[in-house]
Formats: sequence, structure tokens, C-alpha cells
Amino acid sequence: MRIGILTSGGDCPGLNAVIRGVVLKGTTAYGLDFVGIRDGWRGVVDGDFFPLSRHDVKGLSKVGGTILGTSRTNPYEGPRGGAENIARTLEDAGIDGILAIGGEGTLAAADRLWKDGINVLGVPKTIDNDLRATDYSFGFDTAVNIATDAMDRLRTTGDSHQRCMVAEVMGRHVGWIALHAGVAAGAHVICIPEVPMSIDEICRQVTSAHDRGRAPLVVVSEGFTITGMDEAHSHKGLDAFNRPRLGGIGELIAPEIERITGIETRATVLGHIQRGGSPSAFDRVLATRLGLHAADALVDGAWGQMVAMRGTDIVRVQFDEALGELNTVPLYRYEEAAALFG
Amino acid sequence: MRIGILTSGGDCPGLNAVIRGVVLKGTTAYGLDFVGIRDGWRGVVDGDFFPLSRHDVKGLSKVGGTILGTSRTNPYEGPRGGAENIARTLEDAGIDGILAIGGEGTLAAADRLWKDGINVLGVPKTIDNDLRATDYSFGFDTAVNIATDAMDRLRTTGDSHQRCMVAEVMGRHVGWIALHAGVAAGAHVICIPEVPMSIDEICRQVTSAHDRGRAPLVVVSEGFTITGMDEAHSHKGLDAFNRPRLGGIGELIAPEIERITGIETRATVLGHIQRGGSPSAFDRVLATRLGLHAADALVDGAWGQMVAMRGTDIVRVQFDEALGELNTVPLYRYEEAAALFG
Amino acid sequence: MRIGILTSGGDCPGLNAVIRGVVLKGTTAYGLDFVGIRDGWRGVVDGDFFPLSRHDVKGLSKVGGTILGTSRTNPYEGPRGGAENIARTLEDAGIDGILAIGGEGTLAAADRLWKDGINVLGVPKTIDNDLRATDYSFGFDTAVNIATDAMDRLRTTGDSHQRCMVAEVMGRHVGWIALHAGVAAGAHVICIPEVPMSIDEICRQVTSAHDRGRAPLVVVSEGFTITGMDEAHSHKGLDAFNRPRLGGIGELIAPEIERITGIETRATVLGHIQRGGSPSAFDRVLATRLGLHAADALVDGAWGQMVAMRGTDIVRVQFDEALGELNTVPLYRYEEAAALFG
Amino acid sequence: MRIGILTSGGDCPGLNAVIRGVVLKGTTAYGLDFVGIRDGWRGVVDGDFFPLSRHDVKGLSKVGGTILGTSRTNPYEGPRGGAENIARTLEDAGIDGILAIGGEGTLAAADRLWKDGINVLGVPKTIDNDLRATDYSFGFDTAVNIATDAMDRLRTTGDSHQRCMVAEVMGRHVGWIALHAGVAAGAHVICIPEVPMSIDEICRQVTSAHDRGRAPLVVVSEGFTITGMDEAHSHKGLDAFNRPRLGGIGELIAPEIERITGIETRATVLGHIQRGGSPSAFDRVLATRLGLHAADALVDGAWGQMVAMRGTDIVRVQFDEALGELNTVPLYRYEEAAALFG
Repeated sequence: MRIGILTSGGDCPGLNAVIRGVVLKGTTAYGLDFVGIRDGWRGVVDGDFFPLSRHDVKGLSKVGGTILGTSRTNPYEGPRGGAENIARTLEDAGIDGILAIGGEGTLAAADRLWKDGINVLGVPKTIDNDLRATDYSFGFDTAVNIATDAMDRLRTTGDSHQRCMVAEVMGRHVGWIALHAGVAAGAHVICIPEVPMSIDEICRQVTSAHDRGRAPLVVVSEGFTITGMDEAHSHKGLDAFNRPRLGGIGELIAPEIERITGIETRATVLGHIQRGGSPSAFDRVLATRLGLHAADALVDGAWGQMVAMRGTDIVRVQFDEALGELNTVPLYRYEEAAALFG
Repeated sequence: MRIGILTSGGDCPGLNAVIRGVVLKGTTAYGLDFVGIRDGWRGVVDGDFFPLSRHDVKGLSKVGGTILGTSRTNPYEGPRGGAENIARTLEDAGIDGILAIGGEGTLAAADRLWKDGINVLGVPKTIDNDLRATDYSFGFDTAVNIATDAMDRLRTTGDSHQRCMVAEVMGRHVGWIALHAGVAAGAHVICIPEVPMSIDEICRQVTSAHDRGRAPLVVVSEGFTITGMDEAHSHKGLDAFNRPRLGGIGELIAPEIERITGIETRATVLGHIQRGGSPSAFDRVLATRLGLHAADALVDGAWGQMVAMRGTDIVRVQFDEALGELNTVPLYRYEEAAALFG
Repeated sequence: MRIGILTSGGDCPGLNAVIRGVVLKGTTAYGLDFVGIRDGWRGVVDGDFFPLSRHDVKGLSKVGGTILGTSRTNPYEGPRGGAENIARTLEDAGIDGILAIGGEGTLAAADRLWKDGINVLGVPKTIDNDLRATDYSFGFDTAVNIATDAMDRLRTTGDSHQRCMVAEVMGRHVGWIALHAGVAAGAHVICIPEVPMSIDEICRQVTSAHDRGRAPLVVVSEGFTITGMDEAHSHKGLDAFNRPRLGGIGELIAPEIERITGIETRATVLGHIQRGGSPSAFDRVLATRLGLHAADALVDGAWGQMVAMRGTDIVRVQFDEALGELNTVPLYRYEEAAALFG
Repeated sequence: MRIGILTSGGDCPGLNAVIRGVVLKGTTAYGLDFVGIRDGWRGVVDGDFFPLSRHDVKGLSKVGGTILGTSRTNPYEGPRGGAENIARTLEDAGIDGILAIGGEGTLAAADRLWKDGINVLGVPKTIDNDLRATDYSFGFDTAVNIATDAMDRLRTTGDSHQRCMVAEVMGRHVGWIALHAGVAAGAHVICIPEVPMSIDEICRQVTSAHDRGRAPLVVVSEGFTITGMDEAHSHKGLDAFNRPRLGGIGELIAPEIERITGIETRATVLGHIQRGGSPSAFDRVLATRLGLHAADALVDGAWGQMVAMRGTDIVRVQFDEALGELNTVPLYRYEEAAALFG
């Protein structure tokens, strides 16, 4: 059986460890034959394949990014896209099935292709931890470690200058990175998309920390929204002075905090450093295990499913189960942490 | 209500984060009064207490070790030990209950004291991850990260010199650290207490990796035993040349591998660096959450129980459930990883 | 003899190690008496002093920031400022001399105060490495390590997406951090204040790297200026589309590169994380040695001088020597590195 | 001109960065042709060469170890060794000169070969920093960072258990790693080969730290010798109880400290982790610069010389200058640090 492997969407630490895991087990335990697909669905549509042997994956568990390349191509678009064309392209290359490693968009496309008759198995990938059906996804732990380390550094500057430091972390739709990194770094305010807050509430918490002699540390997800702000500010991309705003939410909040509380405030947008580089040990183990179990699932012909983490086990889940609703931070988890801020 | 907090047994990254979590939530949400107990059960027996306020725990989530100190004292020993004496000592100090953070021995003592009428709540602590009733324990993730980082380093030396590198990691009774760090670092042989192996089997795997052009990387738990070796060697602390052996199992295995395979082999015993220093973000979050939930449990009077992690939740578990049998690596987890070695 | 110690200007990893070094040697070897001055010159002017004993500096070599606090106050301003007032304030507190740890502005003020009769000794502090008279200054090595680590991470994202990644690092007037971190991380373009370039030249180098199959990595000092750009763009804070520009130079360059080369480009502004957190071993050793030698210089009454690094030695330098001209990157150092880019 | 590159002796972080630097500049600026020599002098003797292009060195600045392999072969030994044989082997392969990257032994062999008519240029490599003629050598900074990080971790365990922690670091003949890591980590005793001490003096310093309420931290070079110990102990490899000693000096000292002071003491031998893994930014920059300047020296035909660091400059030095005497820690550097211990 010949399997094509692709990685799709934003890169994420652990992608290479999945690839290594599935290729090592697939070749040695089951005699599977693998081809790499370049740049996600783009390579499927274009038939951009190359041989992928055991030798090609050696040493990959600690390497960030993806050796396969990635893109955001939709496999149903373009003159060579669509299930029928793709079926023919795969058949021409002797490929019996696809292992698609990606996030919500990738898995939705995988689901549609599978319903259209293509053999697809999925591995969930989301640095934001926003997929239901898996307790944790690889890349998340690495991102939280990087964000925590950055905030540990910001804290010493805050303490020395008696400043309020604002750190903007990843999370367009869910606040997991902000919640975990905020708890780990001892943040005094945690702003996540699931819990909109007014600027006054943020400032109340900042002032409370300041009054206890602390240099306030605020962590904010990129997808956080401020309630009660003039629509012009939050939605039209203007800052509080009606200037076009180009930066992120962290750069919007910081001057507001300074203006209202009178405490000198600085913002840092962590950005892309959160998703690159060598994965944490947790992510390497999780990604490797997902790859190993994916090899089993390929041999079992478990198409239309994805492998996922539940507790300490790796299980199989129908695509449907993973899609639809995001894995948001439940309110009790946010409130649990609130006791740390006072 | 006044609560005494103690940490007992070997130190572990995350102890301070537990202390911070329980004190912050206990004081701000419930108005509890805390005292620190110095050096584990030793401080209980001696009545060595000191006030522990919110101010004392600030900034602690990232600090390794324990501000309370620790020891391996048994609370039932000595002229001032035993439940009756301890009850009086606690009463004199106005202490209504104890939060005991520790491993199997600590929790067994806590269970006995509770059955003898002392209010005790537990928080499980084991860097080896050897306690049932909690999916993961804080400190384990940090240890795995440190061991993985060390093995990443050993690998470059192995590759440059075409040597076999042996890394001995913690784990007297269970092989979790070796298994996770070995998978994360891409080890070619993983030797754990749960799966005794002969030196010939180890050498077969080393040679196989060498024949594939790799510099063999072997990870071995300190509690691993070699099967089929002369009793004099493995049990009487003699090495293969009948010299008294002072080092660990790693230093025993390495010269044997070199002798049998002819491949130059070096051992490194990671030792104490695995348990010190700042906790990983995962461990800070886990330890903080255990502390927060411990505050709830204290207010609920959930004596005789401990807080624990199940999936992504924090739950309460009877002491009994956690004791007795160790959380060993199940065979299917070991075999799952075996596909990586070939 | 009683000495007041102050830290002034932006915080910097190693400040606490200097304080520890001078207090340990000053107290144990010479019997000096130390007081801490809060928040730089602000504390001198306000007479904001506190006792500083050997006990207060324990464990500080690895702690980022400054336990003394810092500010940008000018000691010659305000009703209580000026040499005469300060002399009286110091006399009232029984302070015989000041150890001022700071950058160009701090040392210029120190020089002026010394010429006005106040006993001042200096320790150079600049994370940018922009002071003449010292080969390296503490904080610089830490900043370069952090920037290098961040660029290692950005590179994996660049490779996976075939993107050009732009990293903006510190350096308003000099390009040392960009040069060293760029060489260490294998950047393909290094943009520093000392070597203005046109956007076309930058794009030529980006395209050249891209044509060799590399994901171009560009590092740019915050103080870099683009030549040949409409004055409106570079000086009036407008971007290439005449929109007000709020971000840094990195955020200006990135969209220009993408527009001209057609290569998808992303910018990351590393910002404050470069100056916080635990110092590197190099910076701890350098800062500690400066502190130890400062104690000798205090006892010698070497007022009007500062301690500095030359080769592997610590020497004394007149304030004058250190001031006036910045330690810029010499052209031969930039050209030396240019061979790496092609 | 065709140049063969070899790395010889123990591996060291930065070797690959040197190789990358010389190949990039040599090919692009001077049109040199490079071949890799496998496993040091072994590959010279055996004529084990392979092409080394610009493409082969991409991304290498951050990669630990050496892609060329290394060995401890003496080029004057064996049937194919000696200057005459080597000259013929090189001529047959069209190799005009050798760039030898190595330590004292390698450079001594290079010197002898050069005096016997072979074109050899050297790059100094010593993780111990034991070569005269270069202020610092690459690999040293990385080793000091790793040892410092390990000691930071040991300290939290020492503090929690009120133990004395002993860390054995590299340094057979010189104590630079122990001195710098000891100062950086705030060690209370530093034991280096240049300054033999009695066990009583060590215990006096340990007890002094303990009496000040500190958990004593002792760093010891592997080549340190204890004065006044029975010859049987220190020279015949017996421990204080006349048992054969297999471990390092750290494992010898620890039980002695515990026996004499009564303070519980634990030893950790850092071993090979100090020399592996990704180089620090400092080492990457230094190694890259040495490589770039080596390309210049090759074109200049500066045979019989090596490139070296002086202050912030890269200079050329005759082999003779670098050999003969080791770069030991001068007494004034040891005494300078002594003020930290008291």
C-alpha cells in the first residue's frame, strides 16, 4: 500500500515528529510505501510527490517546521482541483490513501474528500489547541513554553521599571495559550477571546496588582475583544485616538492602560516565535505517538477518521466529531485561574 | 481555619507553585490562615512552624525546589512522633489541618495519620510519575525536558565520533522518564525497570542502529536490571570484571556494550540536574491547579483525600486509591515505542 | 566608608550581578558599608536610600533586572537636583561616594557631578554594546543569545512556508546585536544603522537567497534607515502606502519586500524580551568581575573613572574616554560578515 | 586551489560553524575548491575525501558536533602515515593544502607536517580554553553555559534539602570552565587543577557557607587534585575507604565532605553533555569569524599559522606560539573570584 503524507496550514512544532513516527512504523512493521506531498493540498492537486523512506525521516523528532512544506491551498479549487481530478492524480501515482496532518480547515477538506471517495486519514494539528476531540494537540505545549519564557523575561523589566507589561500571544479564537502561559508566568490579568472585558475592568485588575506592590503583567490573546469600546476603535482598526491601528490588540490595550491608570505600560507582540523551533519533549512524544498510531490506522483502513489524544491514550475519532465547534476555554477553567489575580 | 503546609521527600519542580496556588486561593477566596511547616514531617513533629502569607508566595510559580524545605522523616518515629503527640502539637499551634505534598511514603504516612484522627489533605508529588490515581504528576514533564535536552547534546557527540552514547536517567521503580525522553530524543534502545533485558538483546539493538549508519543512543532508567547476568554482577554491585561497582547501571552497561559490539561507548549519568531548577510551563500549570483545587478541598473538609489530574481535569481521590501499587509503564506503551527502534 | 549604589537607564541582564560583586568584595575584603539608592538618580535627588548588606545580594548573579529599581531622571533637574543639593543630601546620609551603573547618559551625569565635586565611580551598562572603552558590556551577550534563539525559531517557519522572515532587534544607534545575532543565526541580510541601504539592495539579497533555495532571513536593527525612500516614508512615520506607521522598521520593510520580490514576508519585532530575564554565563561573569574590581576602585578612591573590559582584563578608564563617540560597528566587521550572504 | 578540511580530537560546539564560514567565503570570494576529510588525520592517511560545496554547509552554524567526523589518529603512525606518504596521498587527490581544526595535539601534528613540507593552516579548538594565543576558543562559552545551567538546577535541590552539592565539570589540565561556571552560578568553593587544596580547606569553605545559611555549592574540575591525601587515595584510584574508585574526582570529594562536615553531600558529574548540542551565539560568531579569516589566510598561503582571537579581533599566530605551554588560569584570576566565597 502506498500512502501520501501532507502537512497543511500554519507550521507547528511536532509536524516532523508525526511524519517520522508514521514512516518508521509504517515501513518496518507493515511494509507500507510512503511518498511525501509538497506544500499540503497544493501538492495533491499538482501531483507534486517524492519518495519518503525511513532514511529521510531520521533525526526528525526534534526538528521544527515540516520537511514537506505547507500551504493554505483548498483542494476543491482550481482547474486540477476537486475529488475527481484528485482521484485520478493519486491513481496515476499509485497512491492508495492520504495522511493529512492539519487543522480545522484541513480536516474539513479531508472529510469532504473522504465523503467523495478518497481514502483520507487525519492527524489533528493546531498550535492554539482549538480542536475538540483531542485533549491536547502537539505544538501547543511548545508555544506555551515559549510564551512563558518570554513573560518571565518581561517580568524582570516590569519589576525594575515599575511598569505594566502587556504580552500578546497567539489565539485568534480560543484563549488556551494565554490561559496556560498566564498561569505559568504568574500574570495578573488574562484576556481571552472567550471572556470579553471592558478596558475599565482590565485597568481595575492592573491597579489592584500595582497597589499590592507588583509590576502588573497582562497577557492577551490576539483574538481578545474589548467590550464597551467605541465600535470605531475595536472594529474599524482605529486606536483610541482614532489613528489607524496596524498592530495587534496588545498594542491597542497598552496605551489605554497607561492613559487610564497612569502606570507606564509597554506591549510586546510575541508573534511567529511561538510556532517555530524545536518542539518540547511533551510535543515530541505526543506527535510521535500520533504518527505511530496513524500507521496502525492506515493498515486498518480507518479512512474518514483521525487519531487523537484522550487522557494518556491515543484513540480514533470520526472527522465529524472533531469539526464544527471549537475547543474553547470553558468558563470554569477561566474562573479557576481568577483566584490567582485577586 | 488554620492550615499547615508541608513538602516531604525528594524535591521536585512545581512544589512552590502548589504552595503559591493554595495560599493565594485559600487566603483571598476563603480567608484561610496558613503556616509553613519546615522540612516535611520533621517540622510537624518538632512544631517548627512559621506564618505563610500571600506576600510570601509571590513570584513562586517559576521557582524550583521548595521554600518550606523537605526531609525524609517518618512522623511516627522519635519521642515526639506518633498521632497523639502530633495532635497535641498541632492543637497548641492552633492548626486545624495539614496539607501534605509528597510521594508514596508521604501519602502513606498521611493516610495513617488521617485514620488516627488528624486532618490531612494530600497533593501527589513524584518526579518519576509512579503514582496511580493521577495521569501525570508535576516535575515529571520538567525532568523529561531536561533529559531530552541532555540526550540531544549527547547525540551530536555520538554522531561526530561514531560512538554509542548511554544516558542514565531517573526512575528507580518505573521507566516513564526513560520512555518519554527516549522517544523524544529518538533513542535506539530504551531500558526500563518494567522490561528487563539481556545485555545481548541490548547489543543487538545497538548493532542494528549502528549498521543503519546511526550513532546508537541508549537510555536506561536507574532501576533497570539486566537479565542473565551473573548474580555477582548485577546484585552484588560488581562490574563485569568483578571490580566493585560504585556508579549506576549506565556505567555498568557502557563497557559491556563496548566489549561485546566493539563500538566505542560512553555513559553519562544525568543525576540530580533532572530534579532541580525552574519548572516547565506544563508543570507550573499542573502544580498551580492542584494548589487551587487543594484550597477548595480544604474548605470542603475533604480530609483523607488527595487532588489529582485525570485527563484535563483536577479530581479528588481517596488516599487508598493512590497507594499500594505503582504506576508502572504498561507493556503496550513500551511496545508502541519499539517500532521506533527496529 | 559608606557607598551608595544606583542603577540608571533601561534595565539590563547583569545589573544585579554587579551589585552582588561589589557588595560581597566591598564588605568582606574592605569593610565598606553600602546603601542602595532607589530608582537611579531619582533616589539620589530624593535621598531615597536603604541599607544593603551581604545578605541582601545572595543568589543575585542569575537574577535579571535590578533590585535597586531604575529611572531616567536627570540629577541636575528639579528643585532638589544639582551638585550642591546632592552633596548635602549625601552628607546628611553619611554617604562618601556613589557607584553609578548606567549607560552614556548616566555616565555623562556622573562625569559632571564628579567635576562638581561629588565622588562618583562608574560601571558601564549598555545592552546595545554602544560604549567605547569597553570591549563588551554585560547584557549584550544575553540579548544576542535571545535574538539568535528567536531567529532559529523563525527560520523553521520560513522554511516550511517558503517565506521571507524579518526580525527586528534592538539597536537604535549601533548594529552590534543585529550583526552578531545575524551571523549566529545565519541571516541572509543584515541591516544596521551604520550601513544604510536601499530597499532595492535588500530585495536583491533576499531574492538571491531565495534563488539558492533558502527561505530568506532578514535581521534589522531598530535604528536602521532605508536610503532613497521618500522622506515622507522614512521620516514622517508613514509607510509605503502613505499610511501612518506605528510599528518599527521591521514592519515597514516586510511589506515592501513582499511587494517588490513577490515572496510572502512576515515581520517579528522582538522588543522587550531581549533585555529581561536571567543573564547568560558570559554576562554573569563579566558583570561580577566589574563589580569586584569596582570594590577595589572604591577603596583606591578612583573617582571620575569607570571599570571596563579590555581583552580578558578589567581595567579603569576616565569617564571622558568612554563618552562622546559611540562604539559603532566598524565597516570591516560588516564586510567581513558579508561573505556569508552572497 | 583545492583545500582539504579536517576536524580532529574531541568534538566541540562550533566546529560546523568554522567549516561553514571557510567554505562560504572560500568559494564565493576566492573560488576555492574544498574537500571534506573524514575523521581527522585518519582520513588524511587513508585518503578518505569527499566534495564539500556551499550547498553542503547550509544551516550549519547552529549544528553541534562536526559533519566531517573526528578521531584521535596520529598522522605519523601506521603504514600509510608520515609526511612523505601524506604528501603523495594529497597530491593524488589534487589537494594543495589542509585546514586542520583541532586542539594541542592536532596543532602539534600540523606544525610537524608543515615543517616536513605539507601546507597546513590551523584553527584552534579546545572546549577547555587551554590554548595560549587565543583569548577564547569556541565551545568554551557553550560549555560554561551548560555547566552554569546545571548548577542553577543543583542549587534548588541543595536549598530544599540543606545539602552540599558538588558538580564536576570538564577541565583535565586547566580550570577555566570551573572558574567561569562557578562564578556565574555563585559557587561557594571552586576547585581547579592550578590550585590544589586540602580536603580540610574545602570543608572549611563548605562549613563557612553553611554557617551563613547557604546550601554549599562546590564546583570541581575533573583534573583537580587534593593535597595531603594519602597517595593511595588520590593516585591509585582508591577512595577514602580504600575501595577502588571508578568515578571522577567529584565522586571522591563528596563523601569526604559529608564525613568531615556532617553535611549531607551529593555529587553530579556533568560529563559529555558539556560538549554536545547547539553552540551559544558567542561561539557561533567566534567560530564563523575564524572560518572566514581562515579563508583569507588560505588564499594568502599563510601555512604554518593558525587564526586566533585577540580582544575583539581575529589575528594570525605561528603554530609555535600556540604550543608548548597551556593557557592555565592565572593566580590573580582565581584570587579575584575568591572574594565571592569568603
